[in-house]
Amino acid sequence: MPELRKDPVIGRWVIISTERGKRPHDFKVTPAPRKSGFCPFCPGNEDKTPPEIFAIRPSNTTPNSPGWSLRVVPNKYPALRVEGELNRRGEGIYDVMNGVGAHEVIIETPHHELKLSQMEIPHIQTILTVYRGRIADLRNDIRLKYVLVFKNQGYEAGASLEHSHSQLIATPIVPKTVVEELEGARKYFQYKERCIFCDIVREEIKDQVRVVYEEEHFIAIAPFAPRFPFETWILPKHHQSHYEKSSDTHLQHLAITLKLVLQKLEVALNNPPYNFIIHTSPMQDAEHPYYHWHIEIMPKLTRVAGFERGTGFYINSTSPEEAARYLKTIEID
Amino acid sequence: MPELRKDPVIGRWVIISTERGKRPHDFKVTPAPRKSGFCPFCPGNEDKTPPEIFAIRPSNTTPNSPGWSLRVVPNKYPALRVEGELNRRGEGIYDVMNGVGAHEVIIETPHHELKLSQMEIPHIQTILTVYRGRIADLRNDIRLKYVLVFKNQGYEAGASLEHSHSQLIATPIVPKTVVEELEGARKYFQYKERCIFCDIVREEIKDQVRVVYEEEHFIAIAPFAPRFPFETWILPKHHQSHYEKSSDTHLQHLAITLKLVLQKLEVALNNPPYNFIIHTSPMQDAEHPYYHWHIEIMPKLTRVAGFERGTGFYINSTSPEEAARYLKTIEID
Repeated sequence: MPELRKDPVIGRWVIISTERGKRPHDFKVTPAPRKSGFCPFCPGNEDKTPPEIFAIRPSNTTPNSPGWSLRVVPNKYPALRVEGELNRRGEGIYDVMNGVGAHEVIIETPHHELKLSQMEIPHIQTILTVYRGRIADLRNDIRLKYVLVFKNQGYEAGASLEHSHSQLIATPIVPKTVVEELEGARKYFQYKERCIFCDIVREEIKDQVRVVYEEEHFIAIAPFAPRFPFETWILPKHHQSHYEKSSDTHLQHLAITLKLVLQKLEVALNNPPYNFIIHTSPMQDAEHPYYHWHIEIMPKLTRVAGFERGTGFYINSTSPEEAARYLKTIEID
Repeated sequence: MPELRKDPVIGRWVIISTERGKRPHDFKVTPAPRKSGFCPFCPGNEDKTPPEIFAIRPSNTTPNSPGWSLRVVPNKYPALRVEGELNRRGEGIYDVMNGVGAHEVIIETPHHELKLSQMEIPHIQTILTVYRGRIADLRNDIRLKYVLVFKNQGYEAGASLEHSHSQLIATPIVPKTVVEELEGARKYFQYKERCIFCDIVREEIKDQVRVVYEEEHFIAIAPFAPRFPFETWILPKHHQSHYEKSSDTHLQHLAITLKLVLQKLEVALNNPPYNFIIHTSPMQDAEHPYYHWHIEIMPKLTRVAGFERGTGFYINSTSPEEAARYLKTIEID
């Protein structure tokens, strides 16, 4: 059973998940990208993943057989497991709980070579709709407090398989960075009686210097204080606290925006590895006026990670104004 | 002039330092390790670094010429600069200040091939003593609130030059992670009237399951909630809030402990890239009972960084008990 452990000083929970792990001697060799011919996410290999939780497939096909256009399966090496009780407890001066949660893989397409940015807009919308559906489903398990939806694209960004997929991890605690965002947004709301993200959207539309793309419902910006070169955020222009409350129309517009931003980043930076993460309110919370869901996209261009990881202090050599100006000029057909 | 910018939601300051940066098109090529024959840190090339701030050299040699056994020089591409006023100001809804600070490189040895773990203990003690001296010196500049001393060993851990060196960055703000540690430790002290790090040291000595090495004045442990496989902390066994208050005797014992721990990690993990960071109290603070300086060593073994970087939520596949057990068994002559 994986374990959640709390750092007693800083209050950060970590997942100790040794089942998916390597033995110490395995670390001796630096892992290298595997380019084997076999892919467990390709049609025909459905038995190589745990049985599907959800799929988009014609009604004349059976679960876990070919014919699907999207599959959701449990992660074969889950960081957290659905079974069991949380069992919060002390261990000497420390705090522990069982690693209860969910870890799912969204296999975005049957086509091994197709990247998210290359998919048709209606299919990207389908993927975004599946995220919404999975959050709504997991919300019924009241042990779970948060669902993180994220994508690792490329080996350097942490993807261990090439076939395009995203993941979600549902956790029994709200992750530290999310708590801090919520707290920061709440403080601002108490002081100003406005949502800080709504203020950011207005400020960026007025200033224009960090806008990468703007359409009817969404805006993509280089944030004012980015940690990484070409970090890009996509925000809904109108207030919405929870991603899973997005309408079909909104998800269609999000698909358009996400595709365009990813295309721009790929042209600008020669297909960089990247991560994106959906930042949203804890799913058990009611709608509220102070936090505003958004997507943070972080291309993985630099390797100066150790110092920053240890201190939370980031040095970024590309200003967001320069990044936005560059991305804005890139034409996508 | 570099700029410090504050994320308006989460309150994290970042350094936007475009002078050291690359232009956007430079990101197109993934940087690869340079193995050129030329090294600006080697003796004879003293004119290839900015003039030295401090050096250990015989009195019959002149500054910035060969003969030294250790040099401290300003970083040629500094993230922060010593000149100028902080000039805190608003920019629309955002907060900015000038990137005032210091960024220095400690060239640890004249010998290009020698790693820190291979140096003689008295020389390691000298390096640790130079850290202490630099903090004491920078403390006189009251614009500066914190000095981060850190080392990147190996390309994957962020080192751009092979020749063994460490760095320090003096900042006009206390970095977010340090603030959080101080806050967490202060809360614990308010509740328990004891230093949490002193409690950790006692707990670990009692439990023994996460101890990597223990001697008279220092203990090396795998922390209870490590973010990374084989993350190792070195703590003084007796309370001390500030690194720079360490006595010569203490630094001698620290040199012994640090060398041994690095050697163990290098044998266990086949010379992994790593970062270490000295966590200490803000230098302008008086000595106090709630925070306890320590060194955090983080081998860079995994690349699942994007998700963790974006959420502060770490998944670690090696338990600290397993890591400590393994490191403990490794014999160093």
